[in-house]
Amino acid sequence: MVANTEIICVGNELLIGKVVNTNASWLGKQATSNGITVERITVCADNVEEMAAVFREVLARKPNFVISTGGLGPTFDDKTLEGIAEALHRKLEVNAEALRMVKAKYAEYATTRHIKVDEMTAPRVKMATLPEGTVPLLNPLGTAPGVRADVEGTVLIVLPGVPREMEAIFEASVAPLLRQASGGVVFHEKSIFADDVMESVLAPLIDTVMLDNPSVYIKSHPKGRENKPHMELHLSTSGKPTEKPEQKLKKAAAQLSHLISRAGGEVYANETAESH
Amino acid sequence: MVANTEIICVGNELLIGKVVNTNASWLGKQATSNGITVERITVCADNVEEMAAVFREVLARKPNFVISTGGLGPTFDDKTLEGIAEALHRKLEVNAEALRMVKAKYAEYATTRHIKVDEMTAPRVKMATLPEGTVPLLNPLGTAPGVRADVEGTVLIVLPGVPREMEAIFEASVAPLLRQASGGVVFHEKSIFADDVMESVLAPLIDTVMLDNPSVYIKSHPKGRENKPHMELHLSTSGKPTEKPEQKLKKAAAQLSHLISRAGGEVYANETAESH
Repeated sequence: MVANTEIICVGNELLIGKVVNTNASWLGKQATSNGITVERITVCADNVEEMAAVFREVLARKPNFVISTGGLGPTFDDKTLEGIAEALHRKLEVNAEALRMVKAKYAEYATTRHIKVDEMTAPRVKMATLPEGTVPLLNPLGTAPGVRADVEGTVLIVLPGVPREMEAIFEASVAPLLRQASGGVVFHEKSIFADDVMESVLAPLIDTVMLDNPSVYIKSHPKGRENKPHMELHLSTSGKPTEKPEQKLKKAAAQLSHLISRAGGEVYANETAESH
Repeated sequence: MVANTEIICVGNELLIGKVVNTNASWLGKQATSNGITVERITVCADNVEEMAAVFREVLARKPNFVISTGGLGPTFDDKTLEGIAEALHRKLEVNAEALRMVKAKYAEYATTRHIKVDEMTAPRVKMATLPEGTVPLLNPLGTAPGVRADVEGTVLIVLPGVPREMEAIFEASVAPLLRQASGGVVFHEKSIFADDVMESVLAPLIDTVMLDNPSVYIKSHPKGRENKPHMELHLSTSGKPTEKPEQKLKKAAAQLSHLISRAGGEVYANETAESH
């Protein structure tokens, strides 16, 4: 049984298309490469009721992990912890450890910059106000700590939305948890590229190779046009090193390359030139 | 009452982080600028049961529109119409109009390229196999038609995942529907940029301006670091031209700029230089 996760991204800027959701793809790639299956990504608004609904729905599906990004900062629209508190029916309270982390950051800023930042104003205390029974995760590159909550078998990880801060907390505090949960399963992938073969011609070839290689998933990504085809064939599999996943991919890629060549396509192991 | 939409993006490549979800941000921006509120974006796997669950859940929330992308092509992993058929308890059937569209595309390819493409193989017929009672939408740039279904007051629009094809169908067949539903409401936005003011200092200033300008939403986007702050302040509002939304934004931006300057920040109307 492969461990799984859902990802929740909070922020109006993602819904209105002002910001492209690179946090979701970064987290998806990290979770996958650490052997964890990403089941769903949900993007929701900076709205407490809406967030509470999303966290409740996601937690009800009981994934091993839920990882969220966004909404941990000091401004009014940073409401993720409020939404989670509502979803979990827990109170918000100033967390002593989180407050120490936030205070230490402002003491550091006061030293490195000559501005008065030692005062713990309401927006600063807000970043240390967590749902009860949760644990702050040190933010190596920013002010707002991440948060971990254990909810009926699911590990809920709450990360800020600023990409470099999210990535730093993930790498320090989350990646080790995922690797442990994956039980040594690793994701492997390999792409081959083909010109001059239409996706509708490829379809039965992919079916054949997947039937002969049941642990390999193959997905075609059309990059040209249907009448001027340029195609990426992405092969992937997950497994422990003892299951030799790389050899499985190599065998499937060789068979697929052979079938495509026989159908008149030109196959590349690397994408040498984009045709569009 | 502003009309709303949810967006569903189908594709394992989005979950594993192989592809950044630019379709979601493009659709989010288009819907928003046409006056429609985007409530949620859900990304799910190429899996019929999972898709059926997502479409059922989204339709149960009864938004005015649901727009999906991905999974309409000829290969085995293109299963969106199967998922929708299951969600709606409808049969899949070859749609005569869709089949005409697909046939016409292959006839065109046969003329423009000297390859035999006039045969309607199973993968080609698959692209014309729709849930019963739905309507194909002409794909000006690719083979697989989009699909429209009317489900208990919600207009469900199903688009392919290839960005240029998705965009072309959207512009021809979807944007006019959204504009009509929005009743003339238009989204307006404006950003100002500030250096040397920490987000925790900005927080109460934003609160003041939003209190004085109740129809304007202001969101801060930290782009530097908390101790070397560079901030985008994004102001937005929706309204009919008669409500003078642009003037509302201008007034709020002027007040916010004034407050930031008074707090020691340097304000720019345009982002002249990224500080990170």
